[in-house]
Amino acid sequence: MIQYEVRAGAYYDSVVLMQLQKGLASLPGIVDAGVVMATDANKELLAAMGLLPDNVAAKADDLLIVVQGENEEAARAALAQVNALLQQRRGGAVQTFRPKSLHTAVAQLPTAQFTLISVPGRYAANVAEDALNLGQHVFLYSDNVPLADEVRLKQLARAKGLLLMGPDCGTAVINGVGLGFANRVRRGRIGLVAASGTGLQAVSTEIHNLGGGISQAIGVGGRDLKEEVGGITTWQALDLLQRDAETAVIVLISKPPADQVAATLLRAAQSGPKPVIINFIGYAPPGRRLGNLFFTSGLVDAAEHAVRLSGEVVALVEKRRPLSGYLRGLFSGGTLAYEMLLGLQAVLTPLYSNIPIHPPQQLPDLMQSQGHTILDLGEDAFTQGRLHPMMDNDLRLRRLRQETADPDVDMIVLDVVLGEGAHPDPAAELAPAIAEAARADKRVVAIVVGTEQDPQNLDSQIERLAAAGAHIFPNVSEALDYVYNRLPPPTRDFPPVSLAAFVGDGVTAVNVGLESFYESVQGQGNTAVQVDWRPPAGGNEKLMAILAKMKPR
Amino acid sequence: MIQYEVRAGAYYDSVVLMQLQKGLASLPGIVDAGVVMATDANKELLAAMGLLPDNVAAKADDLLIVVQGENEEAARAALAQVNALLQQRRGGAVQTFRPKSLHTAVAQLPTAQFTLISVPGRYAANVAEDALNLGQHVFLYSDNVPLADEVRLKQLARAKGLLLMGPDCGTAVINGVGLGFANRVRRGRIGLVAASGTGLQAVSTEIHNLGGGISQAIGVGGRDLKEEVGGITTWQALDLLQRDAETAVIVLISKPPADQVAATLLRAAQSGPKPVIINFIGYAPPGRRLGNLFFTSGLVDAAEHAVRLSGEVVALVEKRRPLSGYLRGLFSGGTLAYEMLLGLQAVLTPLYSNIPIHPPQQLPDLMQSQGHTILDLGEDAFTQGRLHPMMDNDLRLRRLRQETADPDVDMIVLDVVLGEGAHPDPAAELAPAIAEAARADKRVVAIVVGTEQDPQNLDSQIERLAAAGAHIFPNVSEALDYVYNRLPPPTRDFPPVSLAAFVGDGVTAVNVGLESFYESVQGQGNTAVQVDWRPPAGGNEKLMAILAKMKPR
Repeated sequence: MIQYEVRAGAYYDSVVLMQLQKGLASLPGIVDAGVVMATDANKELLAAMGLLPDNVAAKADDLLIVVQGENEEAARAALAQVNALLQQRRGGAVQTFRPKSLHTAVAQLPTAQFTLISVPGRYAANVAEDALNLGQHVFLYSDNVPLADEVRLKQLARAKGLLLMGPDCGTAVINGVGLGFANRVRRGRIGLVAASGTGLQAVSTEIHNLGGGISQAIGVGGRDLKEEVGGITTWQALDLLQRDAETAVIVLISKPPADQVAATLLRAAQSGPKPVIINFIGYAPPGRRLGNLFFTSGLVDAAEHAVRLSGEVVALVEKRRPLSGYLRGLFSGGTLAYEMLLGLQAVLTPLYSNIPIHPPQQLPDLMQSQGHTILDLGEDAFTQGRLHPMMDNDLRLRRLRQETADPDVDMIVLDVVLGEGAHPDPAAELAPAIAEAARADKRVVAIVVGTEQDPQNLDSQIERLAAAGAHIFPNVSEALDYVYNRLPPPTRDFPPVSLAAFVGDGVTAVNVGLESFYESVQGQGNTAVQVDWRPPAGGNEKLMAILAKMKPR
Repeated sequence: MIQYEVRAGAYYDSVVLMQLQKGLASLPGIVDAGVVMATDANKELLAAMGLLPDNVAAKADDLLIVVQGENEEAARAALAQVNALLQQRRGGAVQTFRPKSLHTAVAQLPTAQFTLISVPGRYAANVAEDALNLGQHVFLYSDNVPLADEVRLKQLARAKGLLLMGPDCGTAVINGVGLGFANRVRRGRIGLVAASGTGLQAVSTEIHNLGGGISQAIGVGGRDLKEEVGGITTWQALDLLQRDAETAVIVLISKPPADQVAATLLRAAQSGPKPVIINFIGYAPPGRRLGNLFFTSGLVDAAEHAVRLSGEVVALVEKRRPLSGYLRGLFSGGTLAYEMLLGLQAVLTPLYSNIPIHPPQQLPDLMQSQGHTILDLGEDAFTQGRLHPMMDNDLRLRRLRQETADPDVDMIVLDVVLGEGAHPDPAAELAPAIAEAARADKRVVAIVVGTEQDPQNLDSQIERLAAAGAHIFPNVSEALDYVYNRLPPPTRDFPPVSLAAFVGDGVTAVNVGLESFYESVQGQGNTAVQVDWRPPAGGNEKLMAILAKMKPR
């Protein structure tokens, strides 16, 4: 008892489609109804509901209306109501004059600094480009926007000193105003940057419920940290919050970024004057606190950290002479080497090892370091018929001299593991070689693992290693902290986003797309204009392409 | 000016080789010296030092002695000293009777419960097998042991209720005694299980330095958590510490385990009566605290947690009715779905999603869940020309009914995200469907994200969802905690290791291999016997193979 209708190239707001579907389903004698744009995915959904008509000839930009009636008559009667139901909706929306174009809207509301865009994905890039060219920061809710368009738009926004939040940006809180989906949260000293939607909502909600507050919460879209996009908006937002006087603590949330993107962002975060809490979901954290950076496990953990840190003065180490060459780690302990490698791979490239975490890190020639290198000298290849380097320093001393002779090396990291079974006096053998490295202007870091009960005399070992010029730490975490506080900042090659639009309370906004977002902005006490947007050329793809070519660039 | 000598099939303890090398290097007119078993890796090392003679014909089990003199005469003179230098060492070791075989040693010291083995890798498996057959727990320091031998030995040990620690096990602390490399640490209430070496040393040292103490520290070898080995020793050790009255808190340290191994071990850890602190280095933690499990980021973080928890009574949830079917998550929030997926993949298989963290998790048919499934219904494929599920519940309600009808489903997890822009009253639509699921005996978990200022009225939403039968949590972490407390324990199909050898102070041990380990055990006030071990058949591979075949199994 299924009846259906196809309306070729018809465009309706998704709210209208949802209401039409509900309206049809509630008619007498109707079992179920489906109203969708006839994309492949939507047709699959209809099929799963038992609502896909056989051999229906509807394309992605056609509206497909399906009703399942108790009998054919009821179904036909329902379909006959479609226009009336659509009219009903329109009738309810008798309103004042609405600009038909973004250009007119901005002219009508010249103080507008933000444009919200939620038109269907294939139209969204053009609207966003227009908004950027009108000097607007863009909140781009639309999904299904091609990646290439995202890259192009973000490069344009960056060059203009504007933020393009999105695409597929579900949420933001700007000057206390929720854009898109957003919880009502207290204002405060915590600035958020998050990939897209519910991560930011969950953390801002948790912060509020823990008594903290939000300065700005900026969504960047789920693909911003992919290699292709390169974290353009995230870096802009981070930089903005680092300069914003109202923000004391920054929280950065996303799925794991591409390696190179993560390294750049973390170094940018580390180079700033504020603590930055990182929660890359599904990313192996390189530590707990390293330099300015606090790595957390989960959204709640991030929120708790943020609230705690926003309530206290966080002592940050003054930036010291940044790493100006390569770091070389010569470890006797495999797990210590691995933990160091994990900590460094978040921020340093190129990085190599004989115990790589990822295959591309494999050091091709074990006898020769390259780039930043972490070596586990206790690894099988080095110990065949030979004592472990915790007992026999010979191999390590030779390698230490080799690294000292390398002019590209700035820092050398060693572990010195004391205890039963280990060399009775490692400092006696290592100190002269360390002194040699120090004289060659290498910074030497020694991680000394031991207790005051160990047979080697912990204090004496430390004293002699320090006297030779080594910086001594009791564990890998503190050694990593030392390195993080000496990371070279990345080169920022874009103009800063002006803070002008990110002050005080409230926003002035233009909305293109879902009317509920306009109502929400207005309902929060702000000035907004709704654009009465329709697909260009009535959604006709060919005509749209011709129009696009005619547009001046 | 290089001179060299090859001694075919000669076996010396690595300590002797190190001392010979040092002795040669200190002779008059000698610039450098190298004494190694002539493996390919060692020949590469010699080459890197400029000490590899051209066209040297030495094989892996040959001893290669190389000296570099200021002139040929000095080099020749040094080589002529080799026998004298070796004799010197032997002369220093005039000792009482030493058993030539492990069998004799155990007969001589019948109370011995631990055998330490540090002979070269290719001989180690045979010695370890003998030790297990003599009822000994084995501390297997040797590296370069084939993986297949490790699997075979561990299966044998498990069947006998014995621990095989290793191979490549650098360290353990048993009854207060350090085996292999071990720091001298206070005894206390923290039990450690660690892959191999310095991870365990670093954590035990940190615990000691923080004022805590160690009950037992068990090394399992770096490959125990690989899929092939399946975590045999780790599970035995975990089980042992769960039963040990002296252990209050357990710490588990390793590189990331194979997925299936991790899931089994974490469920075993969760099923026990004690808090377990996990630090899988380079593993994305599924949360911070879930059930009994505390996930940490780094060795220091693990140690700090252990000391804190060992000083307090940790409230553990009583085990509740375990998950008896599949879990299905129907999320509107992508990041919430992702965080849930991350939390579950640590413990549940098979697990599928439309936003897989690893490609094998890809759900083949989005319309049909299978195994445990986490769906992000806000993903692009579900939202083309359709409102987001945070505004339109239609799709989710349909899917909720579909999961309710599936007899293999036990638990259904939903998120309900409130705030600006979201559905004005999600509970009104969701509660009836939740009640339907509850009537069908499904456990429903609802994660409600919102603040008391949100327009939907948080309290009323919670009340109505709870009244329908949902268990309500404010975030993914707490929902995961609920699931973890209901994980089905894995089936333990091996006899428990007897606690008999793991009580009181001190060990009685047999040592085969590096004499320094024997001296260390004795030096710590224990009874030990050193076996005067030589390679069987003088290291002749062919003869060894014949002998092996003759051995009764």
